[in-house]
Amino acid sequence: MTYFKEVSKVKYEGRHSNNPYAFKFYNPEEQIGGKTMEETLRYGIAYWHTFVANGTDPFGAGTATRPWDHLKGMDLAKARVEAAFEFFEKINAPFFCFHDVDVAPEGDTLRESNKNLDEIVSMIKEYMKDSKTKLLWNTANMFTNPRWTHGAGTTSHADVYAYAAGKVKKGLEVGKELGAENYVFWGGREGYESLLNTNMKLEQQNLAHLYHMAINYAKEIGFDAQFLIEPKPKEPTTHQYDFDVATATAFLYQYDLQDHFKFNIEANHATLAGHTFEHELRVARESGMLGSVDANQGDLLLGWDTDEFPTDLYTTTLAMYEILKNGGLGRGGLNFDAKVRRGSFETEDLFHAHIAGMDAFAIGLKVAQKMIDDNFFEGIVDERYQTFKSDLGQKIVTGKSSLKELEAHAIDLKDINIRSGQVEKIKAKFNQYLLNI
Amino acid sequence: MTYFKEVSKVKYEGRHSNNPYAFKFYNPEEQIGGKTMEETLRYGIAYWHTFVANGTDPFGAGTATRPWDHLKGMDLAKARVEAAFEFFEKINAPFFCFHDVDVAPEGDTLRESNKNLDEIVSMIKEYMKDSKTKLLWNTANMFTNPRWTHGAGTTSHADVYAYAAGKVKKGLEVGKELGAENYVFWGGREGYESLLNTNMKLEQQNLAHLYHMAINYAKEIGFDAQFLIEPKPKEPTTHQYDFDVATATAFLYQYDLQDHFKFNIEANHATLAGHTFEHELRVARESGMLGSVDANQGDLLLGWDTDEFPTDLYTTTLAMYEILKNGGLGRGGLNFDAKVRRGSFETEDLFHAHIAGMDAFAIGLKVAQKMIDDNFFEGIVDERYQTFKSDLGQKIVTGKSSLKELEAHAIDLKDINIRSGQVEKIKAKFNQYLLNI
Amino acid sequence: MTYFKEVSKVKYEGRHSNNPYAFKFYNPEEQIGGKTMEETLRYGIAYWHTFVANGTDPFGAGTATRPWDHLKGMDLAKARVEAAFEFFEKINAPFFCFHDVDVAPEGDTLRESNKNLDEIVSMIKEYMKDSKTKLLWNTANMFTNPRWTHGAGTTSHADVYAYAAGKVKKGLEVGKELGAENYVFWGGREGYESLLNTNMKLEQQNLAHLYHMAINYAKEIGFDAQFLIEPKPKEPTTHQYDFDVATATAFLYQYDLQDHFKFNIEANHATLAGHTFEHELRVARESGMLGSVDANQGDLLLGWDTDEFPTDLYTTTLAMYEILKNGGLGRGGLNFDAKVRRGSFETEDLFHAHIAGMDAFAIGLKVAQKMIDDNFFEGIVDERYQTFKSDLGQKIVTGKSSLKELEAHAIDLKDINIRSGQVEKIKAKFNQYLLNI
Amino acid sequence: MTYFKEVSKVKYEGRHSNNPYAFKFYNPEEQIGGKTMEETLRYGIAYWHTFVANGTDPFGAGTATRPWDHLKGMDLAKARVEAAFEFFEKINAPFFCFHDVDVAPEGDTLRESNKNLDEIVSMIKEYMKDSKTKLLWNTANMFTNPRWTHGAGTTSHADVYAYAAGKVKKGLEVGKELGAENYVFWGGREGYESLLNTNMKLEQQNLAHLYHMAINYAKEIGFDAQFLIEPKPKEPTTHQYDFDVATATAFLYQYDLQDHFKFNIEANHATLAGHTFEHELRVARESGMLGSVDANQGDLLLGWDTDEFPTDLYTTTLAMYEILKNGGLGRGGLNFDAKVRRGSFETEDLFHAHIAGMDAFAIGLKVAQKMIDDNFFEGIVDERYQTFKSDLGQKIVTGKSSLKELEAHAIDLKDINIRSGQVEKIKAKFNQYLLNI
Repeated sequence: MTYFKEVSKVKYEGRHSNNPYAFKFYNPEEQIGGKTMEETLRYGIAYWHTFVANGTDPFGAGTATRPWDHLKGMDLAKARVEAAFEFFEKINAPFFCFHDVDVAPEGDTLRESNKNLDEIVSMIKEYMKDSKTKLLWNTANMFTNPRWTHGAGTTSHADVYAYAAGKVKKGLEVGKELGAENYVFWGGREGYESLLNTNMKLEQQNLAHLYHMAINYAKEIGFDAQFLIEPKPKEPTTHQYDFDVATATAFLYQYDLQDHFKFNIEANHATLAGHTFEHELRVARESGMLGSVDANQGDLLLGWDTDEFPTDLYTTTLAMYEILKNGGLGRGGLNFDAKVRRGSFETEDLFHAHIAGMDAFAIGLKVAQKMIDDNFFEGIVDERYQTFKSDLGQKIVTGKSSLKELEAHAIDLKDINIRSGQVEKIKAKFNQYLLNI
Repeated sequence: MTYFKEVSKVKYEGRHSNNPYAFKFYNPEEQIGGKTMEETLRYGIAYWHTFVANGTDPFGAGTATRPWDHLKGMDLAKARVEAAFEFFEKINAPFFCFHDVDVAPEGDTLRESNKNLDEIVSMIKEYMKDSKTKLLWNTANMFTNPRWTHGAGTTSHADVYAYAAGKVKKGLEVGKELGAENYVFWGGREGYESLLNTNMKLEQQNLAHLYHMAINYAKEIGFDAQFLIEPKPKEPTTHQYDFDVATATAFLYQYDLQDHFKFNIEANHATLAGHTFEHELRVARESGMLGSVDANQGDLLLGWDTDEFPTDLYTTTLAMYEILKNGGLGRGGLNFDAKVRRGSFETEDLFHAHIAGMDAFAIGLKVAQKMIDDNFFEGIVDERYQTFKSDLGQKIVTGKSSLKELEAHAIDLKDINIRSGQVEKIKAKFNQYLLNI
Repeated sequence: MTYFKEVSKVKYEGRHSNNPYAFKFYNPEEQIGGKTMEETLRYGIAYWHTFVANGTDPFGAGTATRPWDHLKGMDLAKARVEAAFEFFEKINAPFFCFHDVDVAPEGDTLRESNKNLDEIVSMIKEYMKDSKTKLLWNTANMFTNPRWTHGAGTTSHADVYAYAAGKVKKGLEVGKELGAENYVFWGGREGYESLLNTNMKLEQQNLAHLYHMAINYAKEIGFDAQFLIEPKPKEPTTHQYDFDVATATAFLYQYDLQDHFKFNIEANHATLAGHTFEHELRVARESGMLGSVDANQGDLLLGWDTDEFPTDLYTTTLAMYEILKNGGLGRGGLNFDAKVRRGSFETEDLFHAHIAGMDAFAIGLKVAQKMIDDNFFEGIVDERYQTFKSDLGQKIVTGKSSLKELEAHAIDLKDINIRSGQVEKIKAKFNQYLLNI
Repeated sequence: MTYFKEVSKVKYEGRHSNNPYAFKFYNPEEQIGGKTMEETLRYGIAYWHTFVANGTDPFGAGTATRPWDHLKGMDLAKARVEAAFEFFEKINAPFFCFHDVDVAPEGDTLRESNKNLDEIVSMIKEYMKDSKTKLLWNTANMFTNPRWTHGAGTTSHADVYAYAAGKVKKGLEVGKELGAENYVFWGGREGYESLLNTNMKLEQQNLAHLYHMAINYAKEIGFDAQFLIEPKPKEPTTHQYDFDVATATAFLYQYDLQDHFKFNIEANHATLAGHTFEHELRVARESGMLGSVDANQGDLLLGWDTDEFPTDLYTTTLAMYEILKNGGLGRGGLNFDAKVRRGSFETEDLFHAHIAGMDAFAIGLKVAQKMIDDNFFEGIVDERYQTFKSDLGQKIVTGKSSLKELEAHAIDLKDINIRSGQVEKIKAKFNQYLLNI
């Protein structure tokens, strides 16, 4: 059957098009910086937001009206697979992402859940044969069911931990089966509600053990996906252990996991942690750990994860700048971990929202590539740090100097000619780049 | 001369005393948990806030009226030393802390600054001979002078970097001369105003080089103080590299510095980073890196560093709990990095404020010790994680299990008997502990 | 049947009791400041949190295990009434509060919903005959059902507005039937998700019309309850029109409603708006508009409404100070609009949590009354503003001076002897009051 | 003399110009919506930020290097006047704004300060004769001097209040002398540091009296400027009484001042209060109280007033939309209450920054006018609220219905056809408007 009757395949029509179901800026075939837009942007559709979520919020019931609303259980699960692949094709998405419980209903036991999952995974595999859409990543949902109340890999109960381990095992098997590029760990309950009743050390050690076991098992079954940690500072927890990229990096180093993980960075998680999106991308990039991106945006005046579709062009431009400087996202992609507003409950809004986000990152890509072609930021930085090109500067940069040597250089210095950082001029120029695209 | 005429030595008089210049709870000689209060609390006086600051804020001029206001230059510096040691004695402080520019005025060159500093350091050394007050830590101010506008160890100008290195060198020498227990790095300008003009990688590498040079030089001169990093997320920068304990831990690991540093943790910096004070203490403690404490408090409804004197007893209790569980602060201490409010501009307020803080941490110590004696938190945690004492639990905790083994355990599990976390009951009990002291 | 078998009637046993099901500080009969604690505190139980909520959060399913979980529809509704009155008696609560949908399931139409409601209201009325527990307030839930997505009194659809009006009408009738002391308006959806598609003026006018119609109808049916607005700044909306007490006051004045409403002030809503709880209480008190209180607390490091049970004694003390200075709450009360944490899912936690809150406000009452008896804050303020008792001061205070007269007084003034605000000393004294209770 | 030698008069050169000292979008003569850009935008230069501020921050000394740095006292004041009028001409500014202490140094008494002020005001008046630049508004600085520590119109000391009254009197006289369009009250210290020592009621009454006296005196001397209140939530205070537009509106109504004031709305103050800039403009506009604008922007990840030059085009567009819908700013204007970053300390940065801001609002004007010409937002709103055009809808909107009538309409309603709010589609369209300018 057809789920999205009103919309046919979304095509690129250019910036002046008034067709609400056309891309204005995202032209998959267009070459930007030596690759097609599609190759660079690697857009992914989030199964949970687009095919499962119904618009509930802490004060309200679901609002979404979907063509599969009347179904239940495995029938519902199957209808969603059909709808998903129809949507992927119409929106022209090269990738998708899912948690196990997004695609198949949970049973009374892990064994039953796995059985359901197997059936749907087979169906997905069949659909993938006739589709260009690949699996960017999958993961195990270890936060919704009440058993995860006190955590999964950081639970206070050994049976729950074992259950989590079983879920991860299955997740890795499913990833292998579907050829996933990555496997993601978002620890929605891996943190604490209150420090007053928490053994943080034990919890973090156990989490590290879980990661090591996952690495070993993936190797054992020959699943070579990139492992990704997705940092978030809080919500639903009071404190989540993977607070931000830097915090998770410390954890990885302290438990000898640093060579096995990269990061899946979400814009809204960055701002909840008090950082810009581009900051988190930069931190990961400079550590060689920028793996993938959850492309959304938050509302900086709100203190919770709004997961809005990304439309802020400043942010998409700076994000694409970091990604381009990273040499692209490798096996990662731009997954729209974004949900239509509760008030945007009509099926058509799913298209409007994805088009908004895909166009916004396409613009970001074009502007960022132009900046790189012009050596814009590089020129600024090059001039700003030029004194480090001197002999003394080079000794500093390479760590070959000493306090004594540097003191000798500085001891009688009077006026050091530091220069303006010119942030205002740079921001004005940024606006010109944006408007001249 | 006498600077604080109205106040004589502050003594312990007990909770029902109405004398505003008496301790109500801080009894230095009292034994708590096998040590005197003084030995455990190791209070320090912050030279900058108490003898230098004048109450300016971004919208207002200085308000403080101090007996040394009429002096200038080295005369002012010397008067402050006299006043400081009078204050230390009257408030009965075992420690103090300072930045170089707090104690001696800067000259036109580093050489001249050092000359001024030498003169005052000699004077301080003389005063220390007749005083019980020791130097908890000293440091170099590398944030006030305009040369640090773009950073010190992370500056964009090589000469500024050399100047910073010279300042650190002198700071280490001064620390050795005065027998400092610790040397602190707070990187007030070590971060960025805007990512748009910043080479973050180069800046962080240079900062790491500076730390390594400092370690080497301290070794060279035989200065065996504990090195401390003081994290702060932002302000005056938009982003400070030592954002919080976890972020700075990642940095230390990435630049092979993890064995050379502990942390100086400030309450108000913790909350600005989105954490509780006790969280930051816990993170450092569990990494074996809890070095010292900047004892103050912030206003969680304000977004800047208010550096208030600590009076919140929930916070002082939880802080003391972490400190006691750490086996004390070792060479660190509780430094009152706290300033009287701009409206508390009279000299007497310096006494009121320190008494408020010293009493608040004394209460915290007593309550925390009682909780430990009663096995309060330990009992909660012990019961909560008891399933990890089973055979399977022990395999998990020691990292000796596998996904397969755990899946086998979990695959047919139905009801896992997780229990309530009982946070409300614990909080009620906390209140009882507090009021029953 | 008995729902809470494990717990018998909660009694006062004093601060040293170890019985977790006893009040340690709340002694209903105890006279404080000329009234019994029960008369002053007027505790209310929130039906929705205690008998309906199940612990869901945006990332997780319900966790609560309740003795009525197996029931559905009207059977469930009736079981909850039985359980509620058992709970009221055991916890010794003088009041309760509810939304229409808390007590009775919605039907397909308003007519059917009202029918269900009538049946349950009759049952409640019967139970109230044998109970000391009265109805503090009731209200209509106009935020959960999808029809309220774009608002109720501020909806974009006229039919929804009519529906809301019908719900309010029924709410007033139910309030009259059950002898409610107050009727509350919390406008959970009365605001906007985005200003981009919002006609704010029209929405606010319509809301004002709804309030006027409600006033008229209450008069018509002889329902003399106090009308209360409950401000909240945001969540679930991006912006709620009743942002805080001051904002709602402006609205009331602009629509000539200021004589018909007081405020129901919630602690967690205050802090979400950037204010302390005591600030909001003060603002309302000084306008003569302090009506009732939603007694809970938030986590200031989290950006959403956590609705925790109140345990912070600083806050409960300052709240009780405002309430006592207000001459009490009149027809209002202290309603525990608070939910057990998701991790506190056992039925016993409902008792632990309410006891924690009731004890915390009892302590607050005792400390605040002691402060008032001692003229503590009054003495501080009296001294601080004493210059306004002079002739000139009195002309200022009564608005009888002029710029000219005041300029003449000031034109040659040199030193004005303003004094320290002594906040640190006051805070230390506050701690002494707390610990000496 | 010439202060800004390197820069000649800034001209419009169009978006592709690479001249950093040219407007790319601000073309003063260009007709947009029936007026020239200059007439609509009414740009003002903030004397304090541009000619007085030196780049200090709470942790650092001044950094700015200005051609008048070597001067002091009245010589400095006069040099600044010369520099200011040179800057006004070169940047082509139609307006400027100042506080009394920006232009003339304070003396030991108000009389002496007034004498200094008179001398500079005469000089300014002379310069204005040969300049097109007019005075948008002036005001009295009642926050920097220590006497204002506890407030000015809300001080705890009667003499300070009298002093404040004298300053306001002089401010009104100066405004009249220079033909100011507006007179602004920003109450930087009109609030509290702590509620614990504050008589809020007395303070607010006194503030109201001051406003009434000012109104009377302005009338007496025939100064017909528009009076403006500038809301700000906090900083330097813990709580400022004029928290936001709504709060100040409540105050005005409660003290019968609502007909005498409009608002001067600052973008960064809006965001510190938890609102968008456009929200505050809308609230004021819909109350008929949108008077003038302090055009800047904040950093939403920072909790203090950064006063950055406005460059965010989303914000400038929505601000200009509100202004255009208001029929323009009347006697108000867009005052750049913005400071160059501490790191942008060179004189040239003053030009870069103003050009950035002037271009950003020019773009905003063009985009907003296009949206209005296209009926963009109006069309959305018109469709969204169309059900209020029915007979019943009209009764609702005009307040002529009743609960009974509306209940009768709603009682058997089943499906109400509410529609999606389409926020995502609207945001995508917004981006298209922006990029198609």
